[in-house]
Amino acid sequence: MSPIALDAMGGDDAPGVPVAGALRAAAAGIDVTLVGDRGALEPELERALGEAAVARHGGDGVRERLRLAHAPDRIGMEEHAALEVRSRRGSSIYVGTELVNAGEADAFVSAGNTGAVLATALVVLGRLPGVERPALGVVLPATSGPRLLVDAGANAESRASHLVQFAHLGDAYARVALGVASPRVALLSIGGEASKGSSAVVEAHAALARARLRFVGNVEGHDLIATSAADVIVADGFSGNVALKSIEGVIAMLWEELSHVARSSARGRLGGWLLTPGLRATRGRLDYRRYGGAPLLGAGGLVYVAHGRSDARAIESALRTASEGVSAGLLATIAGSVSPAGAT
Amino acid sequence: MSPIALDAMGGDDAPGVPVAGALRAAAAGIDVTLVGDRGALEPELERALGEAAVARHGGDGVRERLRLAHAPDRIGMEEHAALEVRSRRGSSIYVGTELVNAGEADAFVSAGNTGAVLATALVVLGRLPGVERPALGVVLPATSGPRLLVDAGANAESRASHLVQFAHLGDAYARVALGVASPRVALLSIGGEASKGSSAVVEAHAALARARLRFVGNVEGHDLIATSAADVIVADGFSGNVALKSIEGVIAMLWEELSHVARSSARGRLGGWLLTPGLRATRGRLDYRRYGGAPLLGAGGLVYVAHGRSDARAIESALRTASEGVSAGLLATIAGSVSPAGAT
Repeated sequence: MSPIALDAMGGDDAPGVPVAGALRAAAAGIDVTLVGDRGALEPELERALGEAAVARHGGDGVRERLRLAHAPDRIGMEEHAALEVRSRRGSSIYVGTELVNAGEADAFVSAGNTGAVLATALVVLGRLPGVERPALGVVLPATSGPRLLVDAGANAESRASHLVQFAHLGDAYARVALGVASPRVALLSIGGEASKGSSAVVEAHAALARARLRFVGNVEGHDLIATSAADVIVADGFSGNVALKSIEGVIAMLWEELSHVARSSARGRLGGWLLTPGLRATRGRLDYRRYGGAPLLGAGGLVYVAHGRSDARAIESALRTASEGVSAGLLATIAGSVSPAGAT
Repeated sequence: MSPIALDAMGGDDAPGVPVAGALRAAAAGIDVTLVGDRGALEPELERALGEAAVARHGGDGVRERLRLAHAPDRIGMEEHAALEVRSRRGSSIYVGTELVNAGEADAFVSAGNTGAVLATALVVLGRLPGVERPALGVVLPATSGPRLLVDAGANAESRASHLVQFAHLGDAYARVALGVASPRVALLSIGGEASKGSSAVVEAHAALARARLRFVGNVEGHDLIATSAADVIVADGFSGNVALKSIEGVIAMLWEELSHVARSSARGRLGGWLLTPGLRATRGRLDYRRYGGAPLLGAGGLVYVAHGRSDARAIESALRTASEGVSAGLLATIAGSVSPAGAT
């Protein structure tokens, strides 16, 4: 197995956070190639290895599991996504993706500029046969267990044929990466009936009802979190992205309110302290860091996007997700599910 | 001023809840015409008036402010929205809307089948000049004050010209009904830049930037709740509906989790009890009952949709919203904002 390439220059706190995340993953037995400016990375890595040694969890073999790949350029978080990918061949995103293309890495993980990661993956790795538009799969937090939202925003608009492909991609990912034997696939719409929704959604509903999938029909916005009736929820990239960010926004706001109340008086402080252990499980379940990497499904290689605000634990989680995907033969399964011969 | 017509057969707990809501509104000085089956309504009304008299808040003039309008038919909550509106002329939804059309009511409020209410409004009341597609405006709960989401789901898909009209409709509603002197209007998309989003959104962005509106650019899903930078957020009906229901779903889930934790142990019970007063304000701010009615903006008369799970307080709130809209000359202001002469 080749290492997982990690964008060491991507995310709000690069390179410190990616390096720390790589160390955690290496300590768990995952080989990682850190991609970035060697001049910045080497001292950061030495510092982190030193700290880890002091903290006793750097331990055996961590250094041996970590390599560096030099990339002199760095694409900023706010740079325009539609940039000319090929003009940035020196960027950590391009170099990391190219490592996958060359077979020198089995997957690429980045917490950097999502638009640039997606555009670069398409240019460098291409699409699997039968896939018109690769889609971002995000595992949503939910009380009744994880479910996959596809597309969470790789595409600004989606036709019916795209939605059907997203369903097959999500089905394959849920089987391999989430361990769901027979994933229930639902379609995000604005009503339960087959006739509800945009024309693309109505057309996709009809096609999915005939597809070789366990299609359970439409779900609505509140079902994204609440339903226990679907493992994969298919959405056009626009409303999928809006829904995902709406959910993140509300969760952040409510925790904020709760901690405000629990800080604003002695009574609140005591109440908050008493509830903390009970709420820890909820908070953990809703924590995006648990599922630190969102796969770009349908690209010609494994690419995972991590949250720009990822901490070391989230980076570790993304590397672990990628490594498990590689071990499980994810790419081959996905390719089989959407090949013109295999899919509907 | 004419009374507000209320669908007494609409909502999950009709006619009990609508009648109770009408009593509360009447006690607050609002004239209400209850529309529904007279045989069912009369005893319900007598019972409610009797209870109110016992509770001392029925008081003076409540009975005088309430009238009945007979409607023998009732459209079920789950009946298909695309039903033949004109074939249900006996329904409480049709009769109530027709009261507005005939000038016998100033507005119609229903917690019934939303699709039927919208379809009936279009058939009976038509559209204001310059409006291609009326849109549902929903006031979102948010920590930094209310903001209006338009369209929250009246349309399954929206073209750029529709989005621009939604902006003008929302602007007018925010000025009149939310009391915002110069509403900041934003466009829901999947990125901040003008180039981000579906082709309809990108085209609408360009048009809004030239419109006679205080356009502040794109916002994303998390901004629906979190931003304090917009008073009106324009969305296509599909993603607006998905976002609204996602937000409702998360809020319901988190309260559920919180109350579960606060019930599951003595420690949790005490913690929950201590936090209750502090969280009451948050809960109130996020309670859909505060803004019990969502206006159908752009129709040729005032129609408000209330949540199907509305309780009496939510119905009262919707009647109050409608009554205030009438007093403030809402329909004329909206008509002026979108007339082919007045709007961009």
